[in-house]
Amino acid sequence: MADFEKTGRTRVVRKPDRGRYDRATVYAILDEALICHVGIVEDGRPVVIPTAHWRDGDRLYVHGSRASRLLRAMGDGAEVCVTVTLLDGLVLARSGFHHSMNTRSVVIFGKADPVRGRAEKVAALRAFMERLAPGRWDELRPPTDKEIAATEIMALPLVEASAKVRTGGPPGGVPPTTYAGGAPATPGGPVDAEADYAHPVWAGNWPIIQSMGEPVPDARLAPGIALPAYLRHGRG
Amino acid sequence: MADFEKTGRTRVVRKPDRGRYDRATVYAILDEALICHVGIVEDGRPVVIPTAHWRDGDRLYVHGSRASRLLRAMGDGAEVCVTVTLLDGLVLARSGFHHSMNTRSVVIFGKADPVRGRAEKVAALRAFMERLAPGRWDELRPPTDKEIAATEIMALPLVEASAKVRTGGPPGGVPPTTYAGGAPATPGGPVDAEADYAHPVWAGNWPIIQSMGEPVPDARLAPGIALPAYLRHGRG
Repeated sequence: MADFEKTGRTRVVRKPDRGRYDRATVYAILDEALICHVGIVEDGRPVVIPTAHWRDGDRLYVHGSRASRLLRAMGDGAEVCVTVTLLDGLVLARSGFHHSMNTRSVVIFGKADPVRGRAEKVAALRAFMERLAPGRWDELRPPTDKEIAATEIMALPLVEASAKVRTGGPPGGVPPTTYAGGAPATPGGPVDAEADYAHPVWAGNWPIIQSMGEPVPDARLAPGIALPAYLRHGRG
Repeated sequence: MADFEKTGRTRVVRKPDRGRYDRATVYAILDEALICHVGIVEDGRPVVIPTAHWRDGDRLYVHGSRASRLLRAMGDGAEVCVTVTLLDGLVLARSGFHHSMNTRSVVIFGKADPVRGRAEKVAALRAFMERLAPGRWDELRPPTDKEIAATEIMALPLVEASAKVRTGGPPGGVPPTTYAGGAPATPGGPVDAEADYAHPVWAGNWPIIQSMGEPVPDARLAPGIALPAYLRHGRG
């Protein structure tokens, strides 16, 4: 797959060594995150709305009620900026100035196309569910025509996008980023001014972990229903 | 403290029972989250940028390099929309249509004011560090004038804001939200169509947990430095 072309909006200008333009990096971040933040302009002013997303091939999907502000704006052809951020850790340096966060983020610009047609919409929703809980779609009460009609699905072509990564990931993952001419002594750790390394304060990477907890069954669960495999093994 | 006044931009129109306008709810969400997504308009088009934030009283603070796109725009008086989202769980219903997510989000509109003056800037940065790691500020190598001058800090008055909550929190926390005329049988659980409760599929709340991991000391940590208390007891 060809890398994303850098544009005036997607080129990482500050700390350019943190910019990533390959689809593998961008898609991995989109696939790991459960929610995105979508920016639109309303009456000349910015509005940022959080929503679930999923990716299928070279498109990013969001969905919602036909009546929602975001879906209506997107359906009217609004230009959007979709930002997805994974927070991996706090970076504790010897000076306040060199503190940082390990994050992996993606920014996408463009206009989305509505998914039309019952079969196309059901296929898109099935892809979303497969991503969260493989096999679950076929266990559910099937969707009604009314439900499908009430659900707006928008597909944003992944054409103008980039990632920005300060890695807090495991060694062997994305290479540690560098800045200020230096490299962290520890993956995900701080890059301090050389004279500060002797300063007697704890420094390092304080990881942030997002995980799926123990599923809580609904009080009205029908009798005899076991916990499905997709819930036993964690997401994805 | 007076509730936030509902405006055309902050009133929760869809699922209005999820809207919260009291400062306690809004501030608790802002204080729990580590990052926000800031929307600005550039050349008439939306741009959404993730950044760390902190709250002090009735103001939300962000900071960064003077050279950054976001800080420059904010310094030039750009209208912003700041959105903060906490994702608490996936809500698994008996139909695809009634699946949901337990989220707590805040949206803020306004224009930010720069924090000027060395003492004021240092006080703001200290408040930020105190929130993340109480006591750490005084252990650090003190900031230089150059560092303080290079750091732009913007304060957004918390005037036009609201929260939207579908609770996945513990019973006794925020009251369970309701929709479609019903209430979840389990806090954080699904609200299904009545006819669907007999459908034989697992349903419930699949919690998402964000936690601080084991701190990873920097490889160049000065000898004899113990793990500080604020890292042993988790954040805040």
